[in-house]
Amino acid sequence: MFSKSEFRRQGHMIIDFLDDYYRDVENYPVRSQVEPGYLSKRLPESAPYNSESIETILQDVQKDIIPGLTHWQSPNYFAYFPSSGSIAGFLGEMLSTGFNVVGFNWMSSPAATELESIVMNWLGKMLKLPASFLFSSDGSGSSGGGVLQGTTCEAILCTLTAARDQMLNKIGRENIGKLVVYASDQTHCALQKAAQIAGINPKNFRAIATSKVTEFGLSPNSLLSTILADLELGLIPLFLCATVGTTSSTAVDPIGPLCEVTKRYGIWVHVDAAYAGSACICPEFRHFIDGVEDADSFSLNAHKWFFTTLDCCCLWVKDPNALVKALSTNPEYLKNKATESKQVIDYKDWQIALSRRFRSMKLWLVLRSYGVANLRSFLRSHVKMAKQFEGLIANDKRFEIVVPRTFAMVCFRLKPTAIFGQNLGENGRAYIVEDQTNKINQKLLESVNASGRIYMTHAVIGGIYMIRFAIGATLTEERHVNLAWKVVQEHTDTILGALDGKLN
Amino acid sequence: MFSKSEFRRQGHMIIDFLDDYYRDVENYPVRSQVEPGYLSKRLPESAPYNSESIETILQDVQKDIIPGLTHWQSPNYFAYFPSSGSIAGFLGEMLSTGFNVVGFNWMSSPAATELESIVMNWLGKMLKLPASFLFSSDGSGSSGGGVLQGTTCEAILCTLTAARDQMLNKIGRENIGKLVVYASDQTHCALQKAAQIAGINPKNFRAIATSKVTEFGLSPNSLLSTILADLELGLIPLFLCATVGTTSSTAVDPIGPLCEVTKRYGIWVHVDAAYAGSACICPEFRHFIDGVEDADSFSLNAHKWFFTTLDCCCLWVKDPNALVKALSTNPEYLKNKATESKQVIDYKDWQIALSRRFRSMKLWLVLRSYGVANLRSFLRSHVKMAKQFEGLIANDKRFEIVVPRTFAMVCFRLKPTAIFGQNLGENGRAYIVEDQTNKINQKLLESVNASGRIYMTHAVIGGIYMIRFAIGATLTEERHVNLAWKVVQEHTDTILGALDGKLN
Repeated sequence: MFSKSEFRRQGHMIIDFLDDYYRDVENYPVRSQVEPGYLSKRLPESAPYNSESIETILQDVQKDIIPGLTHWQSPNYFAYFPSSGSIAGFLGEMLSTGFNVVGFNWMSSPAATELESIVMNWLGKMLKLPASFLFSSDGSGSSGGGVLQGTTCEAILCTLTAARDQMLNKIGRENIGKLVVYASDQTHCALQKAAQIAGINPKNFRAIATSKVTEFGLSPNSLLSTILADLELGLIPLFLCATVGTTSSTAVDPIGPLCEVTKRYGIWVHVDAAYAGSACICPEFRHFIDGVEDADSFSLNAHKWFFTTLDCCCLWVKDPNALVKALSTNPEYLKNKATESKQVIDYKDWQIALSRRFRSMKLWLVLRSYGVANLRSFLRSHVKMAKQFEGLIANDKRFEIVVPRTFAMVCFRLKPTAIFGQNLGENGRAYIVEDQTNKINQKLLESVNASGRIYMTHAVIGGIYMIRFAIGATLTEERHVNLAWKVVQEHTDTILGALDGKLN
Repeated sequence: MFSKSEFRRQGHMIIDFLDDYYRDVENYPVRSQVEPGYLSKRLPESAPYNSESIETILQDVQKDIIPGLTHWQSPNYFAYFPSSGSIAGFLGEMLSTGFNVVGFNWMSSPAATELESIVMNWLGKMLKLPASFLFSSDGSGSSGGGVLQGTTCEAILCTLTAARDQMLNKIGRENIGKLVVYASDQTHCALQKAAQIAGINPKNFRAIATSKVTEFGLSPNSLLSTILADLELGLIPLFLCATVGTTSSTAVDPIGPLCEVTKRYGIWVHVDAAYAGSACICPEFRHFIDGVEDADSFSLNAHKWFFTTLDCCCLWVKDPNALVKALSTNPEYLKNKATESKQVIDYKDWQIALSRRFRSMKLWLVLRSYGVANLRSFLRSHVKMAKQFEGLIANDKRFEIVVPRTFAMVCFRLKPTAIFGQNLGENGRAYIVEDQTNKINQKLLESVNASGRIYMTHAVIGGIYMIRFAIGATLTEERHVNLAWKVVQEHTDTILGALDGKLN
């Protein structure tokens, strides 16, 4: 089970295996090409009775697993949002796994708790979060602070539960059915799921419509009128999730003006900057979170666009006590002097689970191994490549940018005129044109993805089906962006060629 | 950010660093000896602007982090429950981290989903779980199945949410305040926390008293009378969490007889075998989960006593649709053909978070690398060492076993007679004797732990403070158990010597 010489031998073997993987990954089909059920045809129905060698297992990883992977680390990966790995992130995860401590409270490994508080303050300062979100260095208990969660879903569920219990303690638990949660219709589905889990009546979940006028950001006026309507019905406004960098189009909700509205009603505001938060360590992007000083909590996913392998969601709250009140348990078997001294943080009370990994190790390694300067320049290089891709699109009249690019994602589509020719709109069948345009773009995307050469995904916004080109995979370079555009053009040529004359 | 030659060089460096750590860990104080706030005195207040070398960082890990760790991987670690690592578990985590895929749905990496389903069936068969908990091989949709969660807390929250919504859909959401959750007073605090998060009224959480008569297992009669009293009040019984291997004393709730009670009331039964479930792959322990065929869900933590590094909780459910109904979200940006074909599993709908790591990789490596035969013999070796420790205690009249040992944990204490002499009970001050005995045992434990030579933790059961000696750290051998007992005896000699004559 644990021979030290075997640990070293097998550990080196895996490093070499992964190194070869990174060498080859550029050549693998990005989106896996297997069919549902492929793996059960290849693997036995039961676990082996006797041990198998690591050499055999690695052969099977190569033969059976790798073809079934969609290669998020491929430089040709432009789908969803990136899951940006890095050497430092990987090494940090190795150390954390190697120590394998269960840091539920301070005592169970002080370094795990203290390093987490320290790096959360480091990153908070890099983001210029207000001091009210950070641990105070004078050690006074009345400060904000940061915690590492697995994912934004968990961060939102924890803050929502804290907000809910704070409110129910005031108004009585019997009123749980009256609590209302607000967001825009662009907000990530994590919020809806969290609200469902936390027992918020699904009827009281408000996905407020957005439109092109506000570039799909949530309008404070719409929020206000929705709140007023709810108050009219005797409902109780509880929670707003504002997003900085929505999943569909990287839209930004205006935090400051939204907080102007919420503060009149005592609504907890969570800022979900899962994707775009990372960019805010660059001064030129920091303005997107202006107003955060009026929010109650703020989170970003370091595992998205901050080079820290999955999972690592950074959550800061102004009032950790609200979390602790909602989430703490204090069984006898965990009692210890350090906890009783109240000089320490027990992070188990800041999250859903009791057990927790030593995630701060990887964030620490990323921050130190690259430093603020390099991290900014990596992020800027992705934005620059997105601009490059925008430029390529602009040079091809068949395409258009659907929503303005803000960060490192470009949302584009084949224009109706490319499909129907210039005599559009003259025939009074606009809805058919839009519908067909959507279908052709869908076809284009599927055709590109099926080729395996690059992988992009889609979103529908304002009725428009658009292709999302999200840059952020760590291995992506300018040449991959150029290649990607070439692939898009080739598939466009084929699809439009086959259509020629059939639609207009 | 990602030079391939650097990946190989730095990766090997970390393997060697961890190999040295495992060589030295036996000699480190097991429970960290640092004081609260130690780390902020050693680290800078802000992240570095420029990059630092991995060599510098590793020096700091050695100098600043390792002293702040409580060494869960030390062979002298006997606290809480083990967090048993293994080479295969570590390698699996490396592969998973290296690929760094985000397997929210099938499409996002088919291998991640399919391998998970396969290994959950493998392990389910090893445990002889009824077929109703496994994926059917004929591919029909109407089967049970398994999923990897992070922790038991998450597994319970998901099943409780599923049970809650199933019930509320029948009786109306306005009745959420009437739902009741049942468990014994020995049940892990994860359940209470999950109930809190899921919006169950804290007043409707029943921690039913247990006693020595049932060896602290939940009595079906007590459960029945509690349910009847609740029905009398117009409340609605919802959920029972039965435990196989409680945290305090590894007590076992009788699943079959409890299900006899619950099935009359349509109560969802979850079996939490977080710790002891692993042992049930050995035929001689399997009977502890007899009756599981009548439960609705079953979970164990492979990261506890199954050689799979944190985190890895295995959850099987009979009716995955109940989970999916409560936890699914279906945003446009995740729509894809495979999902629409309904031929695949999208595990995002079986858990709290959307994003998910490729955890099945490490479970697969553990199962293959050791095989059923070795896994059984590892578990048995821990049980054997626990028996050995029991034997050592039996030879020292000052000590007693507080509750019978069932798995690999021994609960013991210094007897009152060792502290007060033989004239106990003659002076009519029994409660003082018990109170003092508890205090002396607490003192003994703190004295042992403060020495750093071994680490154990405590529980209080039936008013008795007892020391828990949990075997399961992968590096522990018989000699460590003998040494541990010697350490306990030495500290006992000192403490009793200092007391001599003062108490009786």
